[in-house]
Amino acid sequence: MMKIIAVNAGSSSLKFQLLEMPQETVLTSGIVERIGIENSVIKIKMNGEKFEEKTPVKDHSVAVKLLLHKLVDLNIVSSIEDINGVGHRVVHGGEKFANSVEITEDVIQAIEEVSDLAPLHNPANLTGIRAFQEALPHIKGVAVFDTAFHQTMKEEEYLYGVPYDWYTKYSVRKYGFHGTSHRFVAERAAQLLNKPLEDTKIIVLHLGNGASICAVDGGKSVDTSMGFTPLAGILMGTRSGDIDPAIVEFIAKKENLDVSEVVNILNKQSGYLGISNNSSDSRDLWTAAHKGDKQSLLAVKKQVKMISDYVAAYFVTMGGCDAICFTAGVGENAIFTRQLIAKRLRPLGVHIDEERNFVRGVEKLISTDDSPIKLFLLPTNEEVMIARDTLRLSK
Amino acid sequence: MMKIIAVNAGSSSLKFQLLEMPQETVLTSGIVERIGIENSVIKIKMNGEKFEEKTPVKDHSVAVKLLLHKLVDLNIVSSIEDINGVGHRVVHGGEKFANSVEITEDVIQAIEEVSDLAPLHNPANLTGIRAFQEALPHIKGVAVFDTAFHQTMKEEEYLYGVPYDWYTKYSVRKYGFHGTSHRFVAERAAQLLNKPLEDTKIIVLHLGNGASICAVDGGKSVDTSMGFTPLAGILMGTRSGDIDPAIVEFIAKKENLDVSEVVNILNKQSGYLGISNNSSDSRDLWTAAHKGDKQSLLAVKKQVKMISDYVAAYFVTMGGCDAICFTAGVGENAIFTRQLIAKRLRPLGVHIDEERNFVRGVEKLISTDDSPIKLFLLPTNEEVMIARDTLRLSK
Repeated sequence: MMKIIAVNAGSSSLKFQLLEMPQETVLTSGIVERIGIENSVIKIKMNGEKFEEKTPVKDHSVAVKLLLHKLVDLNIVSSIEDINGVGHRVVHGGEKFANSVEITEDVIQAIEEVSDLAPLHNPANLTGIRAFQEALPHIKGVAVFDTAFHQTMKEEEYLYGVPYDWYTKYSVRKYGFHGTSHRFVAERAAQLLNKPLEDTKIIVLHLGNGASICAVDGGKSVDTSMGFTPLAGILMGTRSGDIDPAIVEFIAKKENLDVSEVVNILNKQSGYLGISNNSSDSRDLWTAAHKGDKQSLLAVKKQVKMISDYVAAYFVTMGGCDAICFTAGVGENAIFTRQLIAKRLRPLGVHIDEERNFVRGVEKLISTDDSPIKLFLLPTNEEVMIARDTLRLSK
Repeated sequence: MMKIIAVNAGSSSLKFQLLEMPQETVLTSGIVERIGIENSVIKIKMNGEKFEEKTPVKDHSVAVKLLLHKLVDLNIVSSIEDINGVGHRVVHGGEKFANSVEITEDVIQAIEEVSDLAPLHNPANLTGIRAFQEALPHIKGVAVFDTAFHQTMKEEEYLYGVPYDWYTKYSVRKYGFHGTSHRFVAERAAQLLNKPLEDTKIIVLHLGNGASICAVDGGKSVDTSMGFTPLAGILMGTRSGDIDPAIVEFIAKKENLDVSEVVNILNKQSGYLGISNNSSDSRDLWTAAHKGDKQSLLAVKKQVKMISDYVAAYFVTMGGCDAICFTAGVGENAIFTRQLIAKRLRPLGVHIDEERNFVRGVEKLISTDDSPIKLFLLPTNEEVMIARDTLRLSK
């Protein structure tokens, strides 16, 4: 039995979950927020109770020490030596990491080297790694990359139709993200299908505020909708997804913006929010849509159209599909979005059971019994995946 | 019987074809090249013979007079009064034109108003229109738009996931191009299928140096791969097609270029040329690929992948497909590209007959007899389509 912490360090936050492995029991979870700024706070959940404390937290190093002491104070662990493993989410592994790895100085250097590709995320992830190494020097820790799962894509899937030296000089290619989630869901779907993972063809729709689709053939990612960055693919809460790249130039000139300002709008003021002029939250859009707001419905319909285009493409890429899985915030909760997607996909052999689909946030088959392609509602669990890899690599 | 000229005016060229209608017989075709620059030349083809003359041509007005006189000199028409109609290709009709129209002053003004969306093409097209009106004042002429056919797309197909006011203020949306070709091919395919156009679902692959795919449901375009500009969609001779739009920002910074320079590279140094580092011409790529050049083959495979993704999406959008048609330079001639595309599409019910497919530039069924989706090689003819519309609207 091991106690493993799964960590997700952002630039001013540190999310964590403590799991008992291999049972995969969540002992506690929480977050330190507003690190390095005013009004820092630590929030911890355990046994349904919430614990919250405001206290200055000047950096990630302080945050980690604080949270470890709280785990002892709250009797979640008897001492910090009880913790046997730490798994860190790292956003970008570039082409260097196709799997999770034990963290060494070489690994840290390699994560730094690809920080160029995720300038907001990788440095923050590294701050978390260093803070835990300082607080728990006996534990090396494991890095689990969002991009690693997609390193099995073929050249013609991941290359763009741009000058080849953009790839060789600057590593411009499709990486894909949400790999930990796609992997978790595909593995679970294979269990539900009662088939060996190697024999399954699964399409995962990770629909959260960020959203991506993945074609998982025999347990391997063969294509995914996000690209060089998490902007590409389907429309999301505030991100445009795919657009004609010439629009960037056109708008830069029309609005007298530089290219970064335009791309910033594509990341933060587009998607659901951009079309609806209402909200980036799927729940708000459906509330408005049910009251007759055309723009809110249009935003959803556009996303549904983009999703079904990708699913169709992945059906053909894999030469078939056993199951399509809905996961993450929107995927697990937006009943009517799932219904619209399933209806569009009927020509592929997708038959949703509308009654079964009338549910939120549980693991469930939502297609009819005779649907050639199964539909699953399947809550994702990236923390468990991080803990599993950490357990395996800490042995 | 009417003699109709189909005209395609570029900034320094004027292509034309004279057709006898409604028989659709080509009486002659030709081009005036290097208008307004040194070494202007007029080239005319008739009855298999070629006629060529170098002569100064200072503007489109001179070019039109020159070609009309040549038609008389060469006894192709007995006098310029024999010409009954002039049909002009116009690249961009914005949202103003969903059909071909007789040219009036209002039409000219409307074409000018959307020139913003096609700053290189529409002004050149207008120069051709004005030159013909001057030379043949008794003929109003007809405008045939590349974009018009796609005006039947639904909102969720043509809108992008960007701030909605980019659409309302600047008309940023998907327009699509090659509409005249897609329409010609879809209509002909319906004849070959021996079905009323209204009852057919056809996917047209217009694969030339520029390339686009169109889903034609009951004779109406429901979606197409090009977008706001002809850069979007599938990889082409020198164009990237779809990429993560964030790449524009990344490369602008890395290479110290402004946004227009990056988009210019995406238009002119990408696609086949960019990946292969060899050529923008499909023939060169295959020659090299057969000799073992990996990059040339990769460029083709990337295009094949992007094409099959779109076809799959359109199959689902239409809820099925009767026929997939290959047209334009690459589509009509690249035997092995067609073969690769067809093989990828097998999961949809596409079975190519490799022997039938071993042919170039003719109208032919190239799928097996039992293929659920038919494959046609179907040479396009935009000039005939322009002449048909001109005939209809000149009555």
